[in-house]
Amino acid sequence: MNFSAITYVLSLLWMLLGLCMLLVAGIVGGIYDTPRQAWTMGLTALVPLALGVTAFLFFRRKQDSTAMSSDRRMGYATVALAWLSASVLGALPFITVSQFTPVDAIFETASGLTTTGASIIDDTQKLLYGKTLEGGLESLPRCILFWRSTLNWLGGVGIVYFVLLVLPLLHLSQGKQLYNAEVPGIKTSGDQLTPRLNSSVLYILLLYIAITATAGVTYWICGMSPFDAINHAFTTISTGGFSTKAASLGAFGPAVQWSVTFFMLVSACNFSLYLRFIITRRFSCFRDEEFRFFCAMILAATAIITFCLMAKPGNKEPFSNVKDLSSIQKFELCLRTAAFHVATVGSTTGFTTSNYETWGQDDRDDNKDNHTGYKEPKGGLPTVLIILGIMMLPCGCGGSTAGGMKCSRLIVLAKQLLYEIKHCIFPRSLPDIRLNGERLDSDVVAKTFAFTALYICIFIIVAVLLTLAEQCSLKTALGTALSAISNVGPGFGHTCPAYTFSWMTDFSKCLSALTMITGRLELYTILTLFIPSFWRR
Amino acid sequence: MNFSAITYVLSLLWMLLGLCMLLVAGIVGGIYDTPRQAWTMGLTALVPLALGVTAFLFFRRKQDSTAMSSDRRMGYATVALAWLSASVLGALPFITVSQFTPVDAIFETASGLTTTGASIIDDTQKLLYGKTLEGGLESLPRCILFWRSTLNWLGGVGIVYFVLLVLPLLHLSQGKQLYNAEVPGIKTSGDQLTPRLNSSVLYILLLYIAITATAGVTYWICGMSPFDAINHAFTTISTGGFSTKAASLGAFGPAVQWSVTFFMLVSACNFSLYLRFIITRRFSCFRDEEFRFFCAMILAATAIITFCLMAKPGNKEPFSNVKDLSSIQKFELCLRTAAFHVATVGSTTGFTTSNYETWGQDDRDDNKDNHTGYKEPKGGLPTVLIILGIMMLPCGCGGSTAGGMKCSRLIVLAKQLLYEIKHCIFPRSLPDIRLNGERLDSDVVAKTFAFTALYICIFIIVAVLLTLAEQCSLKTALGTALSAISNVGPGFGHTCPAYTFSWMTDFSKCLSALTMITGRLELYTILTLFIPSFWRR
Repeated sequence: MNFSAITYVLSLLWMLLGLCMLLVAGIVGGIYDTPRQAWTMGLTALVPLALGVTAFLFFRRKQDSTAMSSDRRMGYATVALAWLSASVLGALPFITVSQFTPVDAIFETASGLTTTGASIIDDTQKLLYGKTLEGGLESLPRCILFWRSTLNWLGGVGIVYFVLLVLPLLHLSQGKQLYNAEVPGIKTSGDQLTPRLNSSVLYILLLYIAITATAGVTYWICGMSPFDAINHAFTTISTGGFSTKAASLGAFGPAVQWSVTFFMLVSACNFSLYLRFIITRRFSCFRDEEFRFFCAMILAATAIITFCLMAKPGNKEPFSNVKDLSSIQKFELCLRTAAFHVATVGSTTGFTTSNYETWGQDDRDDNKDNHTGYKEPKGGLPTVLIILGIMMLPCGCGGSTAGGMKCSRLIVLAKQLLYEIKHCIFPRSLPDIRLNGERLDSDVVAKTFAFTALYICIFIIVAVLLTLAEQCSLKTALGTALSAISNVGPGFGHTCPAYTFSWMTDFSKCLSALTMITGRLELYTILTLFIPSFWRR
Repeated sequence: MNFSAITYVLSLLWMLLGLCMLLVAGIVGGIYDTPRQAWTMGLTALVPLALGVTAFLFFRRKQDSTAMSSDRRMGYATVALAWLSASVLGALPFITVSQFTPVDAIFETASGLTTTGASIIDDTQKLLYGKTLEGGLESLPRCILFWRSTLNWLGGVGIVYFVLLVLPLLHLSQGKQLYNAEVPGIKTSGDQLTPRLNSSVLYILLLYIAITATAGVTYWICGMSPFDAINHAFTTISTGGFSTKAASLGAFGPAVQWSVTFFMLVSACNFSLYLRFIITRRFSCFRDEEFRFFCAMILAATAIITFCLMAKPGNKEPFSNVKDLSSIQKFELCLRTAAFHVATVGSTTGFTTSNYETWGQDDRDDNKDNHTGYKEPKGGLPTVLIILGIMMLPCGCGGSTAGGMKCSRLIVLAKQLLYEIKHCIFPRSLPDIRLNGERLDSDVVAKTFAFTALYICIFIIVAVLLTLAEQCSLKTALGTALSAISNVGPGFGHTCPAYTFSWMTDFSKCLSALTMITGRLELYTILTLFIPSFWRR
């Protein structure tokens, strides 16, 4: 393991992080915040900058251009350390400007960079020196709010592609491996649009910036303030989910909610489809199996949840005055609420407009009795909850900024399962699993199954550890673990949209943060670190 | 599809079922029950007997000895129809003798034959003609109680091996396929002890009877009445879990509970290990990887749960007077309770001594507040519940009477996952997955992954359907679906050991019964029926 080569790569990342921090402090802090806050953040930015410059100057000369290509483990170590170090350095402004405890700050940063969007910021949050954050999220200085959005945006594809753009400085051959580690989904040879990996990456980066700008302008037109519009554009396109309001998107009107729904879905699709559309000028998205599957899944889930809400809206927010609405208005409200939350969960963004745990609940009806004296706990609409829970697994498409297992894996799983069932009856049939017409090796199928199994294993192990650390309910533990590994944000039970993660112990916060990073890097990058042979010479 | 050949095989099964029913009516009904009850059951037995004899005589002459071997689908159809028809015919005594509704009766029979042990019998159960079953389980005639145990016992391996013993009458070559469909677990060539499948089957049948007799005598010595001892021996060795008491094993003393724990674990291990021990006279069980894994899993789970119970027993049953016990007595109580429930879930038996949902609950402590005003529902010890939940997946060893995914599959999964992680670092390494030293084809590994994925899919689909049909909580739906597919018996929430399944709608009962059969036949046999090409010529 050549640590000087790794540090050299990381130094570039640290400089980028410091630079972004400096920009946020100068521009946002300068416009909106007190000079003291802006200067504190500006000075904090010097830490990653200084660290980056020092490491860069110190390790530059020692480079041997074949160092990175000599060992696969180097690539994994670089990516893992990039995310871990960025989570620590990015946490500094939270500590210096707003006196977060270090664990809270690192949780928030990891949640931001992995585009999870789970937050520990609320009005019960403990700060340093025994204080409590009075006023919650909205009392924070705007430079901190914007820094959160920036973390989301950088995490979305920024860091990924930064690393990829930087790597050629060292040695190109390793780029492909890091691309596999960082860009989510199953890779087929058709994925690469341009013969050179780098120009493809550059195009996608430009596209990412263009979609962000479009979203920002749209939100502004729909009625958001410019500051909110930019923040939410940053966190929508990265499928991050940090908001500048404690009520998340519930603080905005229907027009904004609909447009956010649209952009969340856009961000969860494979960006190379859009690139292909721009290059070839032909809209061929529907030829892509994953895109079709994603659309069908979103439509089906929205339809079921709308139906459930229409049947039993209850009288909690946003249905408190549903009785006074005309049936068209009621339908629009149910459809909007359903579509928004399906999109937010299916794209792993994590915005919310209301608490899905209380949908369907009514103050008047007591816990249901079921004629045996057993009282089920009040849990709103169970079908809605289980469907949102299922949506947290596959999530978006490969090549997008979304987390989760990715639809393409689910398609491969489904095809292989169908084949296995048929194989029982027709034992001489041979497997022929195709994705977009391209035949997949049994090797790729096996990897997909292994990935799924690992995903579920980690999810369950994290849930067990959470029950041990917190004595929370099973639902909270499972919901939180699932939300963390899929980078969604809100979970179920005590991490449902009405609550933040601030009630957790430091152990659980660190565990959740690590789970988010593991999920974001599609498991293997972090898991290889736990294999003893990784560390052997 | 040659339906006359299928009916011919089924006719033998129906005769066996009728014969058993007649014996139960004559012996148990004759000794313990009113003549009216015994005669009703005896006359009911004539239905399957008559049906069987008619079908046998009618279809015997039409047999063409190669019919069964010509088509794999015939084998699947035979097995599926055997279980479905047995579930209907076995339900008759419940209807005629005790006026169960047909759906309740079929649920109870399917639960018995699949050795699930979930019951709808309690004192709120609706009977025919608008009556309610006053007095619950213990008010039923003893011939009915014994019929339930007999169903468990027949389902355990009886029917399986009956079909296998009968098949040679038709054509031997198909035996191997049915063996694969009916005997659970991964099959390796080392599994067959005797060169001829049939003599191996016969030995295991004898062993099954011998272990049942040993268990019955042990229970009797430990203090059960002879009737209870025989019943519980039948339902322990089959890992069924029907009891003659409403309190299940909670109605008996510590000595019985310990001996039941032992025999549940014995029944969950591969029977061919015992056979090998008897034949070779050398105790080589610990050389079997699956056996070692099963033991380790049981020990680890027992240790964790004992620890949790020692730390926070609460004041509900069986810990209501835990304060008055010496620390040794407290430890014995916690260890016994933990070991019993780990064994009951790990072997998919489904006996209980208390309700694990209320362990650790204390009347005094109110719902925990967690300093945000959020109240977690009272759920006892979440770590215990999640560990019991996890235990419901792998369950026993292949070649036993237990349900679930089987430990051997879990071992193969774990090995393949470890290989996949290592493969990331050492891309030139080749897979070498071994079970008991025998190398497994990548084909077998792929099948294992597919099985696991299918298992989880069906579990989730059933849970979704249950939430739609019942408006029960998520926990109840997930717990019930998991318990049904793994043939455990009790689930979580509203199907926890304190409740039966009687509160469910008829749709949910049928769904659960079908899930049990699907789980018992290891998915593929039932799933193939849903493939359109199964029915094509």
